[in-house]
Amino acid sequence: MLTYSFADLGSDSLYGHLYKCIRNDILKGVLAPGTRLPSKRAFAKNLGISTITVENAYQQLMAEGYLYSVPKKGYFVADITNEVKAAAAGTPEEVVISPEQADYFADFVSNSTNQANFPFSIWARLMRETISGKSEELLTNPPPGGIRELREAIADYLFQFRGMSVSPEQIIIGAGTEYLYGLLIQLLGRDKIFAVEDPGYRKIAQIYASNCVKCCYLPLDSSGVDVAALEASGAQILHTSPSHHFPTGIITPISRRYELLGWAARDDSRYIIEDDYDCEFRLLGKPIPALQSIDQTEKVIYMNTFTKSLASTIRISYMVLPPRLLASYYQQLGFYSCTVSNFEQYTLAAFISQGYFEKHVNRMRTFYHRQRDLLLDAIKKSPLSSMVEITEEDAGLHFLMKLATTLSDEELIRRAQREGVRISCLSQYYHQQREGAEHILIINYSGIESDRIAEAIARLSRCLR
Amino acid sequence: MLTYSFADLGSDSLYGHLYKCIRNDILKGVLAPGTRLPSKRAFAKNLGISTITVENAYQQLMAEGYLYSVPKKGYFVADITNEVKAAAAGTPEEVVISPEQADYFADFVSNSTNQANFPFSIWARLMRETISGKSEELLTNPPPGGIRELREAIADYLFQFRGMSVSPEQIIIGAGTEYLYGLLIQLLGRDKIFAVEDPGYRKIAQIYASNCVKCCYLPLDSSGVDVAALEASGAQILHTSPSHHFPTGIITPISRRYELLGWAARDDSRYIIEDDYDCEFRLLGKPIPALQSIDQTEKVIYMNTFTKSLASTIRISYMVLPPRLLASYYQQLGFYSCTVSNFEQYTLAAFISQGYFEKHVNRMRTFYHRQRDLLLDAIKKSPLSSMVEITEEDAGLHFLMKLATTLSDEELIRRAQREGVRISCLSQYYHQQREGAEHILIINYSGIESDRIAEAIARLSRCLR
Repeated sequence: MLTYSFADLGSDSLYGHLYKCIRNDILKGVLAPGTRLPSKRAFAKNLGISTITVENAYQQLMAEGYLYSVPKKGYFVADITNEVKAAAAGTPEEVVISPEQADYFADFVSNSTNQANFPFSIWARLMRETISGKSEELLTNPPPGGIRELREAIADYLFQFRGMSVSPEQIIIGAGTEYLYGLLIQLLGRDKIFAVEDPGYRKIAQIYASNCVKCCYLPLDSSGVDVAALEASGAQILHTSPSHHFPTGIITPISRRYELLGWAARDDSRYIIEDDYDCEFRLLGKPIPALQSIDQTEKVIYMNTFTKSLASTIRISYMVLPPRLLASYYQQLGFYSCTVSNFEQYTLAAFISQGYFEKHVNRMRTFYHRQRDLLLDAIKKSPLSSMVEITEEDAGLHFLMKLATTLSDEELIRRAQREGVRISCLSQYYHQQREGAEHILIINYSGIESDRIAEAIARLSRCLR
Repeated sequence: MLTYSFADLGSDSLYGHLYKCIRNDILKGVLAPGTRLPSKRAFAKNLGISTITVENAYQQLMAEGYLYSVPKKGYFVADITNEVKAAAAGTPEEVVISPEQADYFADFVSNSTNQANFPFSIWARLMRETISGKSEELLTNPPPGGIRELREAIADYLFQFRGMSVSPEQIIIGAGTEYLYGLLIQLLGRDKIFAVEDPGYRKIAQIYASNCVKCCYLPLDSSGVDVAALEASGAQILHTSPSHHFPTGIITPISRRYELLGWAARDDSRYIIEDDYDCEFRLLGKPIPALQSIDQTEKVIYMNTFTKSLASTIRISYMVLPPRLLASYYQQLGFYSCTVSNFEQYTLAAFISQGYFEKHVNRMRTFYHRQRDLLLDAIKKSPLSSMVEITEEDAGLHFLMKLATTLSDEELIRRAQREGVRISCLSQYYHQQREGAEHILIINYSGIESDRIAEAIARLSRCLR
């Protein structure tokens, strides 16, 4: 009779060990297809274990299909040898390991936020309060658009600080704007042509391309999107950042805004996606009012994110759908679960409604103001001062710096990298190469450490020698 | 000269008030296009405010495009009237409010988990430890696949409890499997045909449909997916749950598994998405080994989620890509940011690596075992006992209950709803209507409260009278 040793059990249970022994013998062909296994009682006696143990092992092997049973006859080995051979036919390629990020002394490209500025103790306290006070709500599935409290808090915030009057139902919470773009493609339709700004944030065009959606690039003039080019493009959906264009910093003036709204109003299928990613951080004056707030025709989909204003690693963004799109959203996409955990949604709702978000934004605006001044000061005192021209320095989080140099942009980036400084150039954000876009650095200072600013500028200066 | 009252400032600053007054007059046409505004000094003197205040208001109005300046001439009102009219042309539809979820006495459909079982105090402590101990890591952007610690913890867990040997690089973290399906469509290609199980989890087909991807439905036999039908379908991608099919509970036996792997190996473009959504909760015996663990040819994409095993409202899922797909993943989709916040990723990593996840799963398995026994017992003692046949009760989280009734499934659901009990029927999960699928309830007991079980069954009995 079949015999197995139970001497070397390891962490296995008796039945688990027996299961493995039999399974291996079947896979190796030691137990041939059709072989009848010992009866449970006889097998148990032979192995010195209980009948239940054998029973459990046989049940598991049955469930997985290694054995089959014939009533009143017993247990037999299933025939799996052909399938094993067929399945092993392919030959896999080599393993590729993901590229690791390089470590920079200073990074003027990343959107990551400074850890010293995150309100850890308040966030931790609100999280604790959420966990102890909302145990039931925390485990109740939220509506597809997100939990009510957070959407109400955002609606209040938008009303008070952006002059936008929206209902919580219009607000859809998602794990990052990239995710929400994916939803919008499904909502507005894959047959539409999406127009993006050139230059612009590259990820947006990448997302449309990755989703196989037609995408066209619109040139900008000094007021933003060129409406004639937009009209000529045949696009139905315009993706734009009128309050502060990235990377040029252009603010679309009120007349152009109305022209864009007029374009959208002329056809039923037209919509504008307004990406208001950094409206909180205008350093001079008031925030620029959102396009959404002057839209009478429900043609603007407003988007914003807490990844810029709070932390890039807290993935909470939202969009405000115009009322005319709500029915189709709930009908077509209402089956999707909200992608943000309840724990963070409730914590953020408390953070906003208790006024901490406003305070945080104010504190950050002051901090970024100081960062910018430190940077401008460091540039002024460095050899760079005679070689640069700085623009758009009031808009917050980044400015443009034009260098008087004959070096190519690629060479500039390479030299900076050798100095441990990560920079990007305006020319990299163009889809079609333009005259005059060379030698302009985009200096993003949201993530840079204050005490490294002087040294970072010194290193940049060395690149131009 | 233009005059405004500063008597009713409210919460506005002086310059903010002035800005609003001028803006409103421009929008109402009181200040006509081309009108020259008073010089800053004269205006300030007239209004009894400082020149700086007027300067700030003018700057803001300039930034937004309401005014323009002519050097040495002064500030003028921009012409925006035509655009305002054009933009107001469309007429919006009516507002639709999102449907609210009904409140049930007992819900046998929802996948939400019971709040009494969530390890709140441990989770809160780990979250606190994460916040105080990892402030820098928390604000550092993670790799696209998720933070290293979590992927290592999952790889360890899969090795110990699922016998799977995978590297952390193969693991991609995402905010829910629904999100990961969207990534897979982009990775595998929109030109592919995706095959899903019929009956099956409806959301999967909805996601493919919403992304405009071709999808075909495969009939099941008692071993799961019919390989001949799969071959005939022309599909390249098979989406399956071989360890525990929803809703039938079928376990695909080892021979069929090898047949499926053989199908995948026969063409380079073929892949299998293995959705292992509830492998942790098999109530009898050991978990069924994953298809991935016997795949020699790198054709299986394994998916699992913590929404089932931990809480439906913590949106963390993952997929394990075969090494042959890693290069294209990082190249094509590496630009997407990870959709789960660092805070929850680090907390979950600690939860798994410190052994709490294993303990939690064991505790939940015992709990579900008890839930199921309470349910079976309540059914036995109720008038239902003579009218039902129960199958697949060992698989965990749900079983099937066939009713001896002539009522239609729609009528059953309606009557149960009137009794405050939410149920679903097997027939609802079929794409093509099948004979013999009627009168079979799917009893999901993951979210039901223990002390309501007896009453819920009593109410269900009443539906059959």
